Amino acid sequence: MQDQLKAAVRDVPDFPIKGILFKDITPILQDPKLFRLAVDTIADRQKGKNLKAVVGIDARGFIFAGAVAYKLGIGFVPVRKKGKLPYKTVVTSYTLEYGSETSEMHIDAINKGDNVIIVDDLLATGGTAMAAATLVKKLGGNIAEIDFLIELAFLKGRERLRDYPIFSAIQY
Amino acid sequence: MQDQLKAAVRDVPDFPIKGILFKDITPILQDPKLFRLAVDTIADRQKGKNLKAVVGIDARGFIFAGAVAYKLGIGFVPVRKKGKLPYKTVVTSYTLEYGSETSEMHIDAINKGDNVIIVDDLLATGGTAMAAATLVKKLGGNIAEIDFLIELAFLKGRERLRDYPIFSAIQY
Repeated sequence: MQDQLKAAVRDVPDFPIKGILFKDITPILQDPKLFRLAVDTIADRQKGKNLKAVVGIDARGFIFAGAVAYKLGIGFVPVRKKGKLPYKTVVTSYTLEYGSETSEMHIDAINKGDNVIIVDDLLATGGTAMAAATLVKKLGGNIAEIDFLIELAFLKGRERLRDYPIFSAIQY
Repeated sequence: MQDQLKAAVRDVPDFPIKGILFKDITPILQDPKLFRLAVDTIADRQKGKNLKAVVGIDARGFIFAGAVAYKLGIGFVPVRKKGKLPYKTVVTSYTLEYGSETSEMHIDAINKGDNVIIVDDLLATGGTAMAAATLVKKLGGNIAEIDFLIELAFLKGRERLRDYPIFSAIQY
């Protein structure tokens, strides 16, 4: 399972900047069997967790998170960069290697006590996922798991997210 | 069907700029039944079209397009703004009310003769969808339909897209 997905990931050198070897997941997306396998790998491990929603992170996370929510028959909640969500929001900022970023979630997206999972395509340093987790907690939600298609283990994002159960389908 | 979805859309005044009444679809996303209904409304009309992929438009379009592709058991192809896709791309530019925008698709995303649908959340003036259609055509694909959750009919996007079959679940 993991081998099939890993074999389809395409290495793109020097993207988005020189020296970075980018893990391109679009070959997985465009292959019907691999896309289904990727979604099912995340969805099938959620049984018995009484989830209310899948929290998806803008933008590639939306692709998997929407399909996982559909498969599980639960709702979808977007986390977006500042200024993209139209209604009242909770807000959190986090630091990146250079500069900082701000994420938002609608204030009515999650009710107190709701169990949710957070889904994104890639775990790198964990900043974006940590911001999503912070927003869920601000609304009183419980994070049952944070799920990724790919984990870049050498960046130690899992340590930053150590307060939460983490799953990744593929590791580098 | 349409009534249930329409009733859940939230009007947000003065977003993203003063004078615009924004149609907020997040109440549909976060309601399990309505999210499923929205996805099924698009997916269930594709039977017999022998589709190879769903083309999703960044970023809200990804949410529906990913779930529709999953439901149909076919691939997903992202269209993104310039500089977001890592591999070699086909490119097209289009004009907006103020300025212009550039969209890209990976060159290996669609094979010649492939039937695809394009899915986005909102049909406004049709510029973004037309750009996606142009990219599909550049790769030799056939556009079986362009599907939207919401159509702002007064902006006449359907006229701009008149070369293609158009479906929208909700109209204003």
